[in-house]
Amino acid sequence: MKIIEGYLNTPKGFRAAGAHIGIKKSKKDICLIASDVPAAVAGCFTKNIVKAAPVTWDMDIVASGGMTRGVLVNSGNANACTGTRGAEDNGEMAALFAETIGAEAREILVCSTGVIGVNLPMDVIRPGIKSTAVMLGYSSSSGRDAAEAIMTTDTFMKTVTVSIEVGGKTVTLSGMAKGSGMIHPNMATLLAFVTTDCAISASMLRRALTRAVDKTFNMISVDGDTSTNDTLLALANGMAENEPINNEGEDYFIFAEALCHVCRKLAIDIARDGEGASKLIEASVNGAKSVRDAEILAKGVVSSNLFKAAVFGADANWGRAMCAMGYSGGEFDPQNASVGFSSAAGRISLFEHGSPLVFDEALAKQILSEKEIKVEITLYEGSGAATAWGCDLTYDYVKINGDYRS
Amino acid sequence: MKIIEGYLNTPKGFRAAGAHIGIKKSKKDICLIASDVPAAVAGCFTKNIVKAAPVTWDMDIVASGGMTRGVLVNSGNANACTGTRGAEDNGEMAALFAETIGAEAREILVCSTGVIGVNLPMDVIRPGIKSTAVMLGYSSSSGRDAAEAIMTTDTFMKTVTVSIEVGGKTVTLSGMAKGSGMIHPNMATLLAFVTTDCAISASMLRRALTRAVDKTFNMISVDGDTSTNDTLLALANGMAENEPINNEGEDYFIFAEALCHVCRKLAIDIARDGEGASKLIEASVNGAKSVRDAEILAKGVVSSNLFKAAVFGADANWGRAMCAMGYSGGEFDPQNASVGFSSAAGRISLFEHGSPLVFDEALAKQILSEKEIKVEITLYEGSGAATAWGCDLTYDYVKINGDYRS
Repeated sequence: MKIIEGYLNTPKGFRAAGAHIGIKKSKKDICLIASDVPAAVAGCFTKNIVKAAPVTWDMDIVASGGMTRGVLVNSGNANACTGTRGAEDNGEMAALFAETIGAEAREILVCSTGVIGVNLPMDVIRPGIKSTAVMLGYSSSSGRDAAEAIMTTDTFMKTVTVSIEVGGKTVTLSGMAKGSGMIHPNMATLLAFVTTDCAISASMLRRALTRAVDKTFNMISVDGDTSTNDTLLALANGMAENEPINNEGEDYFIFAEALCHVCRKLAIDIARDGEGASKLIEASVNGAKSVRDAEILAKGVVSSNLFKAAVFGADANWGRAMCAMGYSGGEFDPQNASVGFSSAAGRISLFEHGSPLVFDEALAKQILSEKEIKVEITLYEGSGAATAWGCDLTYDYVKINGDYRS
Repeated sequence: MKIIEGYLNTPKGFRAAGAHIGIKKSKKDICLIASDVPAAVAGCFTKNIVKAAPVTWDMDIVASGGMTRGVLVNSGNANACTGTRGAEDNGEMAALFAETIGAEAREILVCSTGVIGVNLPMDVIRPGIKSTAVMLGYSSSSGRDAAEAIMTTDTFMKTVTVSIEVGGKTVTLSGMAKGSGMIHPNMATLLAFVTTDCAISASMLRRALTRAVDKTFNMISVDGDTSTNDTLLALANGMAENEPINNEGEDYFIFAEALCHVCRKLAIDIARDGEGASKLIEASVNGAKSVRDAEILAKGVVSSNLFKAAVFGADANWGRAMCAMGYSGGEFDPQNASVGFSSAAGRISLFEHGSPLVFDEALAKQILSEKEIKVEITLYEGSGAATAWGCDLTYDYVKINGDYRS
C-alpha cells in the first residue's frame, strides 16, 4: 500500500467541485462529487432517533442496494427538525444535481451539516447547485475545493489517499472527513466520504466498511454527543478494471486493509482536531476478557470529561481513567489492572496489578505535556485488545459551544 | 410537613462532630455521626465496578441487614484503588470510631472522598478519630461542623431538615450532602446522608429510599462521570417513638413523601452547585410513552455537553436538546415533539409538533440569562412524565478539573 497525494477525485472516474453559494456568509458551503459511471455504495449513519432529512434519504437508497452517481454536501444548515418541508427540499436538491450530470434524483446522496431547526435557503441553493456543477473536474484543485467546502471550524483539512495492487491493477482509495472541530455551524457532525475505483460488489464494500468503522470511527469520542446528521459513505465505481471482488479472497483482504487505513487516518485526525482540543489521547486496553470489553473500556477512558480535563491540565490523575473504565459497562477486575502513560517524553507506570505506585510527578507532567498522549491499560484476564482515540477537554471547547449560533 | 432549621443531629438521639485532623491542609476533613441506639439503615451505592474500600464495607453491612451506630466520613482521600491495605485501613477506622462510642466495628459505616490511588495517612487518622469523637454533641454548632467537614469545593452547604406527624408523634428527618461542586479533591463524588428518629423497619426504609432516589438523585447529572465512592445512607433510630412502620400504610406514605422532599432538595442543590456551574437546568418531559422513556429523555437533555455549553452562553440552541434526546436511548417520535424554554424572564416556544418556529432571539437570550432555566418538552404520545436537573458547562469546570491534583 502506498500513501499518495490526492483527493476524492484521484480515483479514476470521479469529479469534484466546491464553492461558496451563500448558505454561509463567506466560506465555501457546497461540495459536489460525481462518478462518471454508476458506483456501488455503502454507508454508516447516525444512531440518533432524530435524523436529518438527508440521512433518511441516504439510508433508504443504501438499503435498497441502488447504485449512485454522486454526492451533494452542504454546510451551514443541517436540514434537521425541519418538518415535511425539510424532506421536500432535500429531494429537490438531489433532483437539481442529478439533472446537471444526467442522472436520476435517487442516484444522488445528500449530506447536510449546520444549525438544526431552520429550513434551507432554497433560493440560493437552486442556482448554487447549477453554478457549482459546471465546475466539476478531475484536477487536484477541484478535489481540494471539495475538501475545503466541507470544512467549517476544522483547524486542518482531513484527507488521505492510498494506492494498492488488486489482481495486477492499480486501485486507488481516497477519503475526506469533517469532524467536530467543525461543529461551527455543525453541532459536532461527523461526515466522511471514501471514493475508490475498485471493482467490488455493494455487499463486499459494506462488509469491508463495517469492519473498518468498528475499529476506527466507532472508537473515537469527542464529546459524547451523537449528531442528527453523522454519515459515512463509500463509493466504488469499478473503473480500475480489476477482477470484481465478490467474496472474501485475497483481493478483498488487500482492499479491506487499505479501507481500514483510510478510515483510521480520518478518524484519528477527527479526534486530534476535536473542538478546542490541544492533545490527542490514545487509550489502549490489552489483556481484556474479550475484544468487546476492551473496546468499551478503551472508549470509556477517552470519553470521560474528568479524565479529558486532567489531560488538558497535564495532571497525572490516572484514577480517573480507572474510574471511567469502572462505569463504562465493560467487564474487568480492578485488582488485576495496570495503568501507564507514555508520550514522546517517555513512559511511566502508575498502577500495577491493583496497587498504586509512588511515581515521579515531574516526569508524569512532562509526559502529559506532549501533543500525543498514550494511556496503556493491561488487565491480565484474556487476549481482548482495543484502541480508542479522543482529545482533551479545554476552555476552548466551552467557548466554541457556548456561543455557537451567534 | 414543616421545613425547619437543623442538621443531622436534630432528629432525636443523634450526635455529630466535624474537625480538621490533617488529611487535608487546613479545611475540616472528618465528620462523625453517632446514634445513641442502634439504627436501621438503608443505602444506595455507586454502580462503578471500581469501588472504594469503604463502599465495599458499607454495602456488606447494609446487605446483611445489620443495625448501625454511626457513620465516619473523611475527605481528602477516596481510599480507592488502594489494594488490600485500603481495606485494612478502612476496617481500622471503623474499629477506632466504634471503640469511642462502645460499639462494634461492623456497626460503623464509612465514607471516603478525595484523590484515588493514594493510601490513607493512618498516622494522622488514628489520633484524629479519637480527638473528634470527644466533640460529638447534640448542639446545632456540632451539626454545622459535621456538615462543613464533608464540604470541599461546594460553594454552599447542602442541608435540609423537616418535621412530620406520624401517628401523633413528631418525627424529624435531616439530610446533608456534598456534590460535585466539591470534586476538589473528590472526582465528583456524591455523598449524602439522612438521619431520622422515625421508627421504621430496615426493609420499609429501603423501599422509601429507593423510590425517593429514583426521582431525585438518579435524575441529576453534572458531568456523566460516576465515581468510585458515591454513597447515600439513611439511618432511622426509632427515638420518636411512633408506632413502627412495617408496611405500606398511611404512616409509610407520610414518611416516604418527607424523605422524597429531603432527597429532592439535596439533589437539586447538588445540580445547582455542579463544578463551575453558573445555572441550574431543569428539563421536564411530558406526554412520553412511559415514565421510563420520560426519565431517559429528560436526563439526556441535562447530560449533553453541547446543550450545557449552549445554556452557559445563553444561546437558544434548542436543536441540541432534540439531538440529545435522540441519542439518549429513550423512545419518542420527533415529528410529535414540542420544545419550549422558560425562566423568571418569561416563556418561549421554539419547536411545535415537529416543526421549527421563528422566535424572538432577544427574548430567548433574556430567558436563558437567568439562574434557573426550564426546558419543557411535550411529546403527545402518552402520559409518561419526568423531571431531571443539571447545570451548565463553563470555563470553570475545565479549570477546576484540569488542575485538580496540583
